[in-house]
Amino acid sequence: MKIAKPIQRLIDSFEKLPGIGPKSAQRLTYYLLHVPQYELEQFANSLVHLKKDTVLCSVCKNVSESDPCEIDQDLSRDKSTIAVVEQPLDILAFEKTRYKGVYHILHGAINPLDNVGPDEIYIEDLMIRVKSDGSINEVIIATNPTMEGEATAMYLAKKLHELKNGSGLIITRLGMGIPTGAYLEFADETTMTQAIEGRRAL
Amino acid sequence: MKIAKPIQRLIDSFEKLPGIGPKSAQRLTYYLLHVPQYELEQFANSLVHLKKDTVLCSVCKNVSESDPCEIDQDLSRDKSTIAVVEQPLDILAFEKTRYKGVYHILHGAINPLDNVGPDEIYIEDLMIRVKSDGSINEVIIATNPTMEGEATAMYLAKKLHELKNGSGLIITRLGMGIPTGAYLEFADETTMTQAIEGRRAL
Repeated sequence: MKIAKPIQRLIDSFEKLPGIGPKSAQRLTYYLLHVPQYELEQFANSLVHLKKDTVLCSVCKNVSESDPCEIDQDLSRDKSTIAVVEQPLDILAFEKTRYKGVYHILHGAINPLDNVGPDEIYIEDLMIRVKSDGSINEVIIATNPTMEGEATAMYLAKKLHELKNGSGLIITRLGMGIPTGAYLEFADETTMTQAIEGRRAL
Repeated sequence: MKIAKPIQRLIDSFEKLPGIGPKSAQRLTYYLLHVPQYELEQFANSLVHLKKDTVLCSVCKNVSESDPCEIDQDLSRDKSTIAVVEQPLDILAFEKTRYKGVYHILHGAINPLDNVGPDEIYIEDLMIRVKSDGSINEVIIATNPTMEGEATAMYLAKKLHELKNGSGLIITRLGMGIPTGAYLEFADETTMTQAIEGRRAL
């Protein structure tokens, strides 16, 4: 038996998403058969408008409805501190804390295996931003502690130190170590090494 | 920070799907920001047409492009054997085997906790089908071996035996036991009991 074409088409669309295999794609599609048509239309509408109704903020490269984005327009934010992150989602992690600075989104990390070099992500924009805006005091490099994220952090640090050239610019990296709620017993050696190196006086 | 509305809307749509939590919904949505617009339109189109371009087959209640469905129109299928399943997806499991009979899809199982009684699923249609079509020799009850599936199987068996009334109709249930490739060591007691009860002469 062939699966009916309208069903197969939706299964194919779901299968292209990351983390959704053939079985999940089938399950999601057959689930949607029981959903009212207006909900399907709503879902479809959100998909079509996802990119149409959003822009990249010219300041921080965040995906936003307005340019500059809400955060860069917000007068209560501390424009002198920039956190550099890989993805827009990473901002949400910061926003859960009391962080009041602004952001710069790279939209990726340096990854030679995937042909992503420094020019493929928004590094040059960050350099121009830091150079042209004298009020920036600190750049917090907050890429992921993965191989690609670390490579990007090292590259950024080198570039920013060149740019700094005697000015008071502070360049920092997010603290690494044991996450809250974890057990030392299960910490891997890299994390433990980082935690020991990053120990603080009490 | 609020997430941009067009993004939040798509996150909400994904979150309504079974097995997709807030984190996965975010991840999928931000992934789609990097996908070309035509792929989003394609996805949206598949969603809108999923139900518009499909019908329920009047014979077996399968979701299909035509009525009767491909299987019921296929002259090479053995119309005298009907496998009764809960969902259209269950047909795919049968179609992987050499089964050549036809199907009846209940679109659910009896589940009093969810207010699903025998009248909410296509049981009556099955009874009418079996009663009116004298060529049916066997009904294989192939609902899931879950609480709801078993309740449905028992209800169906009772109804079909009433209907049978002296005719040669055979009513069977899918064999239960250890699945291929599994280890006895990890079989639960119900499965083991079923396997022992269902043992066959070699």
